[in-house]
Formats: sequence, structure tokens, C-alpha cells
Amino acid sequence: MPRTLIKNGTVITATEQMSADVLIDGEHVVGIAAPGSHGWTADSEIDASGKYVMPGGIDVHTHMELPFGGTNASDSFETGTRAAAWGGTTTIIDFAVQVKGESAMDGYEAWRQKADGNVAIDYGLHMITGDINDQTLKEMDMLVDEGVTSFKMFMAYPGVFYSDDGEILRAMQKAAENGSTICMHAENGIAIDVYVEQALARGETDPVYHGIVRKSMLEGEATHRAIVLAELTGAPLYIVHLSAKEALAEVTAARDRGLNVFAETCPQYLYFGLKELDQGFEGAKFVCSPPMRAREDGHQEHLWDGLKRNDLQVVSTDHCPFCFDDHPELGRQKRLGEEDFSKIPNGMPGVEPRLEVMWEAGVNGGRFGPNRFVELMATTPAKMFGLYPKKGTIAPGGDADVVVFDPTKKHTISVDNQHMRVDYSAYEGTEVTGKVETVLSRGRVIVDDGGYHGKPGDGAYLERGTSQNLL
Amino acid sequence: MPRTLIKNGTVITATEQMSADVLIDGEHVVGIAAPGSHGWTADSEIDASGKYVMPGGIDVHTHMELPFGGTNASDSFETGTRAAAWGGTTTIIDFAVQVKGESAMDGYEAWRQKADGNVAIDYGLHMITGDINDQTLKEMDMLVDEGVTSFKMFMAYPGVFYSDDGEILRAMQKAAENGSTICMHAENGIAIDVYVEQALARGETDPVYHGIVRKSMLEGEATHRAIVLAELTGAPLYIVHLSAKEALAEVTAARDRGLNVFAETCPQYLYFGLKELDQGFEGAKFVCSPPMRAREDGHQEHLWDGLKRNDLQVVSTDHCPFCFDDHPELGRQKRLGEEDFSKIPNGMPGVEPRLEVMWEAGVNGGRFGPNRFVELMATTPAKMFGLYPKKGTIAPGGDADVVVFDPTKKHTISVDNQHMRVDYSAYEGTEVTGKVETVLSRGRVIVDDGGYHGKPGDGAYLERGTSQNLL
Amino acid sequence: MPRTLIKNGTVITATEQMSADVLIDGEHVVGIAAPGSHGWTADSEIDASGKYVMPGGIDVHTHMELPFGGTNASDSFETGTRAAAWGGTTTIIDFAVQVKGESAMDGYEAWRQKADGNVAIDYGLHMITGDINDQTLKEMDMLVDEGVTSFKMFMAYPGVFYSDDGEILRAMQKAAENGSTICMHAENGIAIDVYVEQALARGETDPVYHGIVRKSMLEGEATHRAIVLAELTGAPLYIVHLSAKEALAEVTAARDRGLNVFAETCPQYLYFGLKELDQGFEGAKFVCSPPMRAREDGHQEHLWDGLKRNDLQVVSTDHCPFCFDDHPELGRQKRLGEEDFSKIPNGMPGVEPRLEVMWEAGVNGGRFGPNRFVELMATTPAKMFGLYPKKGTIAPGGDADVVVFDPTKKHTISVDNQHMRVDYSAYEGTEVTGKVETVLSRGRVIVDDGGYHGKPGDGAYLERGTSQNLL
Amino acid sequence: MPRTLIKNGTVITATEQMSADVLIDGEHVVGIAAPGSHGWTADSEIDASGKYVMPGGIDVHTHMELPFGGTNASDSFETGTRAAAWGGTTTIIDFAVQVKGESAMDGYEAWRQKADGNVAIDYGLHMITGDINDQTLKEMDMLVDEGVTSFKMFMAYPGVFYSDDGEILRAMQKAAENGSTICMHAENGIAIDVYVEQALARGETDPVYHGIVRKSMLEGEATHRAIVLAELTGAPLYIVHLSAKEALAEVTAARDRGLNVFAETCPQYLYFGLKELDQGFEGAKFVCSPPMRAREDGHQEHLWDGLKRNDLQVVSTDHCPFCFDDHPELGRQKRLGEEDFSKIPNGMPGVEPRLEVMWEAGVNGGRFGPNRFVELMATTPAKMFGLYPKKGTIAPGGDADVVVFDPTKKHTISVDNQHMRVDYSAYEGTEVTGKVETVLSRGRVIVDDGGYHGKPGDGAYLERGTSQNLL
Repeated sequence: MPRTLIKNGTVITATEQMSADVLIDGEHVVGIAAPGSHGWTADSEIDASGKYVMPGGIDVHTHMELPFGGTNASDSFETGTRAAAWGGTTTIIDFAVQVKGESAMDGYEAWRQKADGNVAIDYGLHMITGDINDQTLKEMDMLVDEGVTSFKMFMAYPGVFYSDDGEILRAMQKAAENGSTICMHAENGIAIDVYVEQALARGETDPVYHGIVRKSMLEGEATHRAIVLAELTGAPLYIVHLSAKEALAEVTAARDRGLNVFAETCPQYLYFGLKELDQGFEGAKFVCSPPMRAREDGHQEHLWDGLKRNDLQVVSTDHCPFCFDDHPELGRQKRLGEEDFSKIPNGMPGVEPRLEVMWEAGVNGGRFGPNRFVELMATTPAKMFGLYPKKGTIAPGGDADVVVFDPTKKHTISVDNQHMRVDYSAYEGTEVTGKVETVLSRGRVIVDDGGYHGKPGDGAYLERGTSQNLL
Repeated sequence: MPRTLIKNGTVITATEQMSADVLIDGEHVVGIAAPGSHGWTADSEIDASGKYVMPGGIDVHTHMELPFGGTNASDSFETGTRAAAWGGTTTIIDFAVQVKGESAMDGYEAWRQKADGNVAIDYGLHMITGDINDQTLKEMDMLVDEGVTSFKMFMAYPGVFYSDDGEILRAMQKAAENGSTICMHAENGIAIDVYVEQALARGETDPVYHGIVRKSMLEGEATHRAIVLAELTGAPLYIVHLSAKEALAEVTAARDRGLNVFAETCPQYLYFGLKELDQGFEGAKFVCSPPMRAREDGHQEHLWDGLKRNDLQVVSTDHCPFCFDDHPELGRQKRLGEEDFSKIPNGMPGVEPRLEVMWEAGVNGGRFGPNRFVELMATTPAKMFGLYPKKGTIAPGGDADVVVFDPTKKHTISVDNQHMRVDYSAYEGTEVTGKVETVLSRGRVIVDDGGYHGKPGDGAYLERGTSQNLL
Repeated sequence: MPRTLIKNGTVITATEQMSADVLIDGEHVVGIAAPGSHGWTADSEIDASGKYVMPGGIDVHTHMELPFGGTNASDSFETGTRAAAWGGTTTIIDFAVQVKGESAMDGYEAWRQKADGNVAIDYGLHMITGDINDQTLKEMDMLVDEGVTSFKMFMAYPGVFYSDDGEILRAMQKAAENGSTICMHAENGIAIDVYVEQALARGETDPVYHGIVRKSMLEGEATHRAIVLAELTGAPLYIVHLSAKEALAEVTAARDRGLNVFAETCPQYLYFGLKELDQGFEGAKFVCSPPMRAREDGHQEHLWDGLKRNDLQVVSTDHCPFCFDDHPELGRQKRLGEEDFSKIPNGMPGVEPRLEVMWEAGVNGGRFGPNRFVELMATTPAKMFGLYPKKGTIAPGGDADVVVFDPTKKHTISVDNQHMRVDYSAYEGTEVTGKVETVLSRGRVIVDDGGYHGKPGDGAYLERGTSQNLL
Repeated sequence: MPRTLIKNGTVITATEQMSADVLIDGEHVVGIAAPGSHGWTADSEIDASGKYVMPGGIDVHTHMELPFGGTNASDSFETGTRAAAWGGTTTIIDFAVQVKGESAMDGYEAWRQKADGNVAIDYGLHMITGDINDQTLKEMDMLVDEGVTSFKMFMAYPGVFYSDDGEILRAMQKAAENGSTICMHAENGIAIDVYVEQALARGETDPVYHGIVRKSMLEGEATHRAIVLAELTGAPLYIVHLSAKEALAEVTAARDRGLNVFAETCPQYLYFGLKELDQGFEGAKFVCSPPMRAREDGHQEHLWDGLKRNDLQVVSTDHCPFCFDDHPELGRQKRLGEEDFSKIPNGMPGVEPRLEVMWEAGVNGGRFGPNRFVELMATTPAKMFGLYPKKGTIAPGGDADVVVFDPTKKHTISVDNQHMRVDYSAYEGTEVTGKVETVLSRGRVIVDDGGYHGKPGDGAYLERGTSQNLL
């Protein structure tokens, strides 16, 4: 098998910062050694002088091709994973969907079919269990055997993905039994829908009202409720896309009591506030749930603090793009909600810029160092969802998913230089210092010299184990 | 320089678990690579098949030769560091002492003289600042330049090491300014001394009363007070030998608020309770401050939880041995307090068995895994006190301080097989599975095959930087 | 109008303890004066030497004739209010019911018809709003005009009284607007019903499982959720029959934040535990919701502490009796659930012994004094629900609802000496010191000398104002 | 004995609001009755139509003639109690002083001598125990027998009144034993004095620095510490002049845990902020300890919330006036600190306007109603310090200490219309609606028609019992 040597870089893992060369043999990292000490030769060499050599990013929350609100997320597995690769992400965990009345296993098979042969990078699947019944509970065991070890439920979206507390309780009992993790969208959707209806009745149809009706206290409430149910059942709980300080306070309190409660946030909740929603229909670009939170209430700083002190353990993207203007193939997307904010498809593009915007705001912004960056973007995601040590670090024996990152390169994020299939970037015009330069997926260079060198189907499905991050 | 290869072991760091060989060149680790992939040769080889290869332990809290209570801690730097080596600890941070009316720099020089040329392993120094005045505040800057970047203060022991809140405030202001860390013995000694006096007046002279008069709530109180002063000044605060659940609750709350507040506990607080103090004068073997806490109040389980969820970040020993029976050279030690528990020299031996007893109770006990073990015993201690990446991990570029650990070897801890200069072991008869087998200090094998191969003066003084563990 | 003088007693109000005579003119108290100082004569005199003269009790939570579980609560307004009078309670607030698909005003009218002309004492009505829709929201305003200023909702009993969070939100918005109070049965009934189904599936049909499936954490959860919704809307919230320490903790936290959150508990939650449910089908006598809580978990002591420190403000009974054995007219009641605990009608008799059992456990038990007793049993209930100063105290101008209480009389509570229409007493055999001796309702003696001197229709409907107990 | 009838007023107690006449016979209230119902005649009548009839105020925190900072508080017992009477306060509790090296009993006798024969109203004494030793502990028992049932200690003022934690612990043990209450000045004076010294060294001599150096967190810290010591010993604890939100949070938490912890605040902490201290040397008028707190930090609103929810139970004044300009007899007072804020005598005048300013901000300001006003100003003070039912309410049998208050009269507070012996009013120019019109002390009218009708020695010493306000 071909050997590659990444030379003279600074290797960053969750713990280490090493001036070291990295030897790759075939698909795996096989050695890390001080330059000049190892005597290694290789078929190809990558010069990483002055650069950081980091594990490829793992984005545990993406929605490629998701059917939602009468349309589909605009990125296919092919386009979305290719964009991920451009951004230095070498693994995603996407969400297969079970809808009411259908089988979870069928949903899983359907998602495998969408992805297999199309993905540019390795991927795993969570399962959205939209219909908890005896059959589904059995399928949860079968899915764990297939490497789907986490199940997502929604306390929001009544009539769509919503599960009531009884369904959640049953699923959590099963998770406690088979060792899987419950991922929770924690917003009190029943109460929110009252506010939605009242807002619309008052003629409040603009995107900003999406942010106003989805109260942060109702994210806090749902988070509290999910934690109580998790404590009762003993299930590990992972709160997805946490955005509200009230929700963070609940997670912090639960962790102080020693519960297996975890949470991710997303770059958009750190970067944006209610103001971004409040610019007429342009605000639709920032419509996702939970919504951007008002900066003056301090949510963003609370989230940064949570990331620093490890009450937030992961940064994912909730990548779920919809085109702002009508798309020739996909048709009307964001503009479905021009007259009614509640009809705007919920979701934003984000899988590609994740590493760069988090490096900018996190590391360059002085909020944490490179080790914590790697931990948030790769190592904990891998351990949280049963992918370690194959994924999530740079160490002998692991997959050679590697990013060479130039911390000095300044550039500006724009839809023009991004590769996601969507017609806008939420970060349009954001200047960042630090760029993903070379990306290896299982030992092969798939991005380099500003070019993409992979092809659909390079990636493979990952059978995940249960969480390795439990207390 | 001679090269050593540690082969076929499982290398454990705070993050990784790798089947890998470790290449040492002279004093440093230079490479880690999968067996069979690297082509390395070496002057000597160590076979670590079936064993763990871990960074040497760092014990950040020892008191070799400490003058206390009219005698001296029984281990000299020579005997104590040799015993540390036997137990797999390759770095200690000891405490130089400034007493009232003397210069801190003089204390530092005196401690360097005691240690240099005698230590078996590398060592650093904290400084006990027993007399805060303008001169001392200046010396704190000078000491930081000498690599003494942490200063210990006592809220206990009035008339001995005690500092009042004003002195603490001044020292913390200086620490906030020069980046050093304040280490705090947090017990309300003024209140405790009232209880001591009252107990003695009632004729309560047995060792158990040492545990009864030093109320856990008074450790909680002092911890709270130290945190308030740290928050006011901005100084990083490190609570030493935390033993009470009330104190842990204060640390947890402070960390939830994002403060740079840290804490260590010690194996004795996890292993022992008030019962061990309550066996007549035998209890004197367990007399140290803060005391062992009553098991029925749940302190021990709270401490374990704190270690799991990282509200406790370090396990040190507070090694400060005194012989139970009169010693030919050192004279009367523990028995000084036969008629009066308050005259028993405070301290216990512990530097040698730390790794093995924590592996037993922590890893074998199912409370955490090998990664967390390494993090608690080596990596965080190194980062906390400015020794990383020279110390605290196994990575190219770092010092080759390495322990080869056999996780299958059962043995029984006893004073008969320990090497500390003291006539008892607190853990006498404790059966453990897992043994430190081979120890390397900066590349040299100093313990192996049940023999010690080093000599006094092998170790060197470590100029430490400021903490690398701050939020 | 006839004048009555209650002489030589010790008058107790929420604040005062006075050796004083009380002058009643017609239906009202008109004067309180030191014996020998006032020169008053009267048509009749009551000698209260050695006795306490207290305001008549107010029980704000009763369910006379309530249709529930396929039967009706066994006490009619006639029998239940007469029993209340025997026990020193001179005012009740009962619950009119709106069921799904019907009008709230119709429910109100129906309950007025049941009660008017039949009640022995004055009464008010809360309204159970079982179907929140636009019409009901309008009726809430109409009901406030009728003196129904509090609305009860259920987070338990899905399919029966249950309201979802959206309905609760709407009702709370209305309450915030018209000044009324939301009374909440706070248990997560959706989750509980899963446990019920699972228990029955395992063949766990005994009454004790009623207590086991209704987890105290699920009362805590629902209480938290109700508080969040109340905070969002600004509605005053009154948690009914709080029984769990987790729920109390939520109320305490809310009050610390200055919210208008209140709670009552009931004597049965102070007296009984899970053990009482665990005696075969005899346990059915103790089946109500929320259930008796396990003593070893400390709920009872937490409730007493809450009463002492005013995080619980009221003691009511949730009087809702069902006969244990089949009743000639009412038919099968408790025994409906002989094969299935979930079919046992929920409720216990309690309106009669409330004052005596609370005096025994509260005052004789040293938990609080006579002032606090009066405050809990009469004054705060009156202020909480808009009845003060007409009801709830002894003061010139108020209704002459008075109890003469002999604190020295020992007696034993038994179904044999109680007057409720039910065939058991939960307090059977309980010895108490202190007895309600004479009861006046609006100036007329209705209980005295061990005899009842009133008649159906003595009592009148009370148009209540909004709460006078808000922060 | 002469009988007085106060007619047609609205009588307010902590619980009641009654349209009633009040009959006074000699020194006592003997009856309360509805006008027209009682048939009472009297030697004199007071027409209270349109007015509130309330219990005379009780100010539990005054310092008449206190030696402090090289001078004496400017009000003597004669002038200060007369001013109190003008303001509707009919009882004070002042502080006798034991200084280091002297006997507490001697201090008590000395204060009795200063007061007896001079006071215009009844008074009690707390004892400042400035020197805890075996003799003082014995004297605490003797003082309880003399009716001095509360002991004040200082965590501030090192070298003056300061007690260390050991002394506090001993005194609290004694208080727990003899049922007395520990009153605590809770500021960490040791730490504050460091800030004072540093500020002066920087040339920061203005009064505003008094407010800056006395950090609110250091009041919080001391309050926490006092609570821990109280919990350890079981002593009732009463925090005097609480001004900081951090301190209030500690009291709230303690009360939530059911501890006998209480606190007062003073009108100045509700009315004024740091700004009042920051007006050059004029700020000296507002110098007292703890200091006024910065409004932008929200302390004032927290205090109001605490008063509403009963985590603050009492409003006293800490009346301790010093003349701003030199006084012919008393000499230099506030101006002692013209060059050094730390030399400004600590204290403000306040005994006279207490009722009117609290009515204005509290009742007129919509923060609480008349019942709570009476409770804060009279009833709880009486119960807290063992004076009830003789003092603190209007009820048959109690002392006829009565205020007739005109809630419609607008006036402006000014030094020109106040009667305290001091040359300024902190409330100068404050417009209030509501005026103390007539004041009776034990049945005699001492203030009426804008005139003072009493004389020195009208008041008597009150032997107090232990607290009647404990949980």
C-alpha cells in the first residue's frame, strides 16, 4: 500500500501539540515521530511546514436531501459530502428518517441507498424515530446491530416529527437497555405553535417572528423535561443544537449531578443573533430551529462559556440548506414562506465552513486553544458516537483522515467560494484567518491545491459502536 | 545518544489508546508507531506485550523533609523521590517554605539545596508564602522567573502557616498580575482551633477527635471564601487536598460560573473515612489535614463523582510521612500526640502507591478508564503547573518519563514492600491488580525487574511556566 | 339582629394571640375587646374559657359529588359541607367542571344548581377548564364576573381532564389578562400512563403500584413546566396538592425569583407514605393523585419545612371520597379497581378532620404555632382566593365564621365519629389532642354540644375577587 | 385610668385592614370594634376619619450617643428618641457596647444610665460583645436575664469592634444554648482594610472610595461565613443592615434550607446608590457601612424583592448621625474625614423619617401593601426581638403605641422640618405622600397637631424575651 509522509507540521490532537511527521500507510496513520529521528521514506510527501496537522473534522449533525416542509434540503449526499470535504470534514453523521406509520428499518435502508455510492467521505447514521411503537422498539435493537447507535426525537414540530413524553419515555427505556443514545431536539413545540398561530393572526409574518415565537425559555423547559425523563430511565441524552442559555443551565445542572447528559451547539448560534433574522425576508436565510437568539440576552456568551468549561462538548452544524431563491430543479425553497414565516423551510447551510469559522471565533478569538478546537470538532464527536479510535484523532492505527491547516492564510467566506449546493452563505463576507489546505480521507488526498481530487462513492458507511463518552 | 524501543505495548495518553511502539532517543520520546510499520532499531528494547505504556506520574503535592510540629517529615528528598520512582512517579512538585519574618527567596534557595543532587527524579517547587509583605510580593515575581509559578497559602494552622484574608487578597492580586496560581489549604483554622481547645478541655484526646473537630462545613466555608477572593482579584485558584463534599460543591459552582478554580483530591480521601481514625492511637497513622471524612455522609462518593465529571482535575498525595513509632534518627513523630491529638504531626505517606491504588479503585473499580487515569495522574498535573509538553504525556518531543504497567499483576500493598522511609503503610493489606513494572526517567530505566537502578541526583530542578490549564 | 358574645377565650388570628371577648352582631364580628373592659351585653353568650377562638377553616380544595372514574364522589354538597362544618370548616371552594365539548358557563351553572340550597356553609367555586378554546377563553372573563376567579387545569389524566401545554399557555394568557389564578394539577400524565400500562402488563395490579408508577420526579417535572409557562405569560400559578419534594424545590426556586407561584399540600401527604398503599387492596383507601410518597425519601419532612418557611402557603384536603365497599345508592366505588389499580377512583375523604389532624401534627407536634395554623387553614386561603376580609380572620367587619377549639380534649378519629358520607377514615385510630367544639357560620351556631344545629341551604355562594396574595 | 377612643379610622395590622374604633384604657389597647356597634365612651377621642391607625414603629437598630471614630453619634437618647417619636416610632432597640478588655455587664449598665430617664419612648438594648472570653460568655446569660436577648458582633472594623471567627463561634454556641440571637455586621473587614489602604496609597481619599473599597462580594462572603457558623452551632442569626444582592442570595439560600437566618435592610440602601457618595465631600453625608451600592448592579431591586418575598423581614435604620459641619458641642464629625474617607465617622441619621419614606417607596410605590408595611416596621421587629404582644401590633392587651397616619398629606422631607440633632437630612427634598400625624406611647399622646407633648423619661426600658420569630 502507498505510504505518505506529512512532514514538518505541528500535529494537534485533543491533548498534544507536537512538531512531528506523520506516516500514513494505506488507509491508516501508522506513526508519528520527530522530524529527523525516524528514518521514514514514503511514496509521497506533504510539506506541512508552518501548518497544523489535525484530525479531519466530524460533523455529527447533517441533513442531506432531507424532505422538509414540502421540499428537500438542497444538498444531496453527493454535493453535501463533497462540500464537507472542502471544509476539512471527513466524517458526517446524518439522520435517517422514520415517519409515522412506517418502519424504522425501511427508513434506514432508504437512507443507505441515498448515501452509498454517492458520498465523498465516510458517514454514519442516526435514526429519527418518528413513530414509537412496539415494532420500532424492536427495530432500535436491530439498528444498533447495524451501527446506528443513536436515535433522535423531537419535542418540537407537532404533527411532523414530534414525539410526546410517553413515546420519549419508551424510547429512552430501550436506549438504556441497548446502550444507545437519545439525541433530542428540545423545544416545547406544543407551546411554540400557540405563539406561531397568535403571531400569524396578528399579521406578524416576517422571518424575525420565527425568532420571537420560539422562546428561549421553552428550549430551557424542554431540555429540563428531557433530562428528567433521561434520569428516570437511565438513558444517555444528547441535546442537539443547543442555543439558549436556559437550556445550557439545565445541562450544566444535570452534569453537576453526574448524569450522562451532553450537548452540542452550532456555529450559527455563536455567530448570529435575532438581528440577523430581522432584515425583512433576507432573514429567511437564518431561519432554523431553535432560532438565533437575541444577543442582548447574552446567549452567545453563555454558549462560549459552556464550550470552554465542557458543559457543551461538541460543535456540529445542523447542515440543512435550502435555496433562498427558487432553484431550477429543487423549485421553491425559502420563498415558500414569503407570506408566512412558519412556512419557511427550517435550516441553514454550514457543513463546509465549520472548521474555519470555529477556528476564527474560537482560537483566533482567544476563547480556547487548538487542542480544545480538535476536541470539539473531531475527538469528542468520535467518542460520543462510537467512532473512536478509528476516527477523531491522529494516532497509529486510526484512519488517516487528516487536515493540513494553514493558520496564517486570510480569506473571506462567500457563496462564491463555497461548494455547497445552495445560493447563499450565512457567513457571507466574514473574514477569517486560517484555511483548510489539504484533506486526506483514509490516506487519500481528496482536497489539495485548491482542487477536489475525489469522486462520489469514495466514502463508506460507518458501523458505529455505542458511546465512548459516558461517565 | 542511546535509543530505546518500548515494543508491543498499549500506549495510553489522556486521549489515546494505541497499540504502538515508542521510540526514545536519549532523554526524549521521538516516535510512536504501529508495530511492524516503522523499521526502527534501538540500542535496547523493552517488551511491553500485554502491558500499558503510560506517562510517568506527576505528584504535584509532596512535602519531603518538611519541618512540622517539632519534627520533620521522615522522607528526605533522596528517600522520598526514590520511593516515588518505585511507584511510577517521575516528577514531583514539592513545597519550599517561607516562614514568618524570613525571605521567600531564602526559603526557595534552602529547598533547592535540600533537593538538588539528592533527587531521584525531576522536581519542581511551589512556594509556601507564610509572610505576605511588600518584600514577599516582590519575591513572588522573582520566583516566577525561577520557575516557581504557584504559591501556597493556608487558611488553617493559625500561628504557623496561617494567612489572614488580607494577606491572601494581596497575594492573589500579585498572582493575577504575574500569571501565577494560588494553591490553597482551605479550612477555617480559626474556628477549628476553638473546637480543638474545647475537645481537649473535655478530655477528648484520641486521634478520632482530629477528624471530629475539623468540620467538613469549615472546609466548605474556607473554600467559598477563597473563591470569592479569587474572583475579586482574578487570580487562578487551586484548592489542594479537597476532602469535603461541601468544598466540592463550592468548586463546582465556581467552575459553572466560568472561574479559573481548580482542585485536587488525594487517594486517602477516597479510600478512608472517619472509621480509620477511630481505632485508638492507631488512628494517628491517618492523621492529616483536612481529615478523613465520615463515609456515611457520602464525601467519598462525591469525590469520585467530582473526578469523573472534572470538577476535580488532579489526584496528588500530600505525601508528608511521619513514623508511627519513634525513629532512631528522627526521634518521636506520630507519638508526639499520644496524649493530645492536636500534637500529632499532620501527614501521611503516599507518594509511592498513588498510581497503583488509584488504578485499583478508579480503573478496576469501574469509575473511569485508562485515559482519565493518565489525565488525572500526569497530563493535567503537567498542564496545571506549567510543565507540558516536556512532562505529562507520551509524545514526540517530550521527556521520556515512562511507566510500563502490568494490568494483570496482583499484589498486596504493605510497608514491607514499600520504599518510603516510614514504618507503616496506610494501605497495609490492600490488594490491587496492576503493577508498575518498569520506570524510565528522561530515557533511563531507573526501576525494572524489581530493582532500583538510579542514584541520588539523577533528577533535576524544573523551571515551570505558568499554568496551561486556564479557561 | 341578635348579638352573641364569645367570652374569655384566647383569640387567635394569623398574627395575634389575645385574651379577648368577641362580639358578634347578626352575621358579623363587630368587636374584640379585653374581658372586663368593654361593657358589652348580648343575646347569647358562649364561654370560651381555656379555649381558642379561631376563624372558621377554609378548605379551598374539595370535590363534592364529582363524577370520576365511572362513579361520583360519595359526599353530596349537603353531606360534605355538613361534615366540613362538624370539623370547623365554614367555607369551601369546590370545583365546577367543564368537560370536553361543553361550555364552561354551563358547567358553572350546573354546579351552582348542585350546591345552592344544599350547602351547610358558604362556598365558592373554581372552574375546571377541560376544553380550552376561543369560547372558553371568553367564558373565563364571564366567570370572573361571577366570582369564579381561579381555573384549574390538569397536566395529568390524558383523555379526561388533561390539557396540553398549548391549552395551558392560552388559559394562562387569559388569566394574566383578567387577574385570575391558574390552579394546576402538576403531574406528567403522559409519561405516567406509560408506566401504568407497563405495570399492568406485568400483572402489577395492586394499589401500591398506583404509588410506584406516579413518580415523584414526574410531579417535579410538571411543576417546573407549569412554572415556566406561568413565567412566560405572567399568570399567577397555584400548585394544588403538592406532594413531592422535587415539586417543592421547583416552587421554592420560583418564589426565590419573585414569581407569583404558590402551593398547597394536604394532610394526607404529611401523614401517610407509600406503606399505607402497600397493604393489599386496603391500600385503595389511600389512592389519590398525586400519591402518598415513600417516607424514606424524605418527602414528608420537606413538606413540613415548606409549610414552616412559607414555600407552601395553604393546607387543603382535596376531599373526594369514594366508599371502600359497595354503597347501596352509589354502587361500586373503590372496588371498581380490585383487579386494576388504575380503575380505583382517585380520592380520599378529608374535609372533616383537617383542622384537628393539622393541629395535632403541626401545633402539638411542635412544627409551628397557633398563628401559623390559622394562617395556613383560613387566612391565606381567604387572601389567596379573594375572600378576605369577609372570610379568613376574626376582625370587626368580617363574617362571624368562628371556631371555638378546645386544645386539651383528647379523642380518637374514627369513621364511627365522623360525618362524611363514606365508609372509612384514612385516619382511623389516630389520637389527637384538641377538638372543634363550637362552630359559628355567619353568626349562627351550627355545631355545638356535639350536635349539628344547621340545615341544608344555610350556606351561600361566595362571589370571589381576584387573589389578594400576590407579590 | 383615662380612656381614649380613636374613632373612624382604618386600623392596619400585619394581617388586618379594619374600619374600626380603637379603645385605649390607660396604657393598653383594650378593644377594637366597628363604629356604631360598641357603645364605648372615653375621656378623650381622636378622630381618625380617612386615616390609618397603625402600631407605632419599632426601630431595632439605632446608635444613640455611640462613641465612634473619635466622636459620638450626635443624637443623645433624649434627642434621638424624641425625633423617633416625631416620626411615629414608639420603640427602639439600641446597642450597648462592650469594648475590648471591659465587662459586658458594665457596658450594659452604662447604657442604661445614658438612656433611663432620658428616653421619650420605650427602648430595649442589644449588646455589642466586643471581647468574647469566658467572662463575657457568662455575662451573656446574665444579660438574657436582664432582657438583653441579642448580641451583636462585627466581622468588620478590625481593631475596633471586630471579632474573629473563633470568637463568633463561641458566642454563637452560647446563643444556641441560652436562646438568644446573634446580630451580625457581615462585611469581611480584613479584606476591606487592604482595599482601604491601597486606595489611600493611590490618593483616593474622597467619600466615593468608601463605597468602592467595601465590595458587595465581601458582604456576601461574610454573610455566607456567618451562616455556616450559625448552622454549625444552631444559633439564630440576624444579619443587620443587609445592602448587597450577594448577601441577600446567601440569606435566601439559608432560609430555603430551613435555617433560622433573618435579615434587615435600611431605607438608605433602598433609596440611595453609589452616585450619592460620588459628589465630592458632600458624599460624606451618605457614608455608613455597608455602603450605598451601585444602582446599575441591581442591588436595590433585589432588596425590594427580598422585602416582598420575606427573605428580608425587617426595615430598621441603623440611625447613627454625625453632623456634616462642625458642631458647637460635639465638635468635628463628618469633616474628620475630609482628607481621608476612612476617617469619616460611619453613620447616617434616619430614625425619624423611616415610616414616611418606606410608606412612600413601599406602599405608594406599589411594592407592597399596608399590611406588609406594618409587618416590616413593627410586628416582625417585635416578634423577632421578643417584644410581642406587648409591642408591635394593635390588639387588646397590648401597649397602646399607636400612630395615626394621614395617607393623603403631601410634604417634603428636609432638615428644616426634622427633629434629629444633626445638620442635614439624607432625604433632603424628597417628596412623600403620607404623614405621621398623631403618636401615642402607652396610651399618652406624645405627638399631635404638629407639636411634641412628651418629656424626657416618658419611655421605659423593655426587658425582652427571646425571639418569637424562629422556625
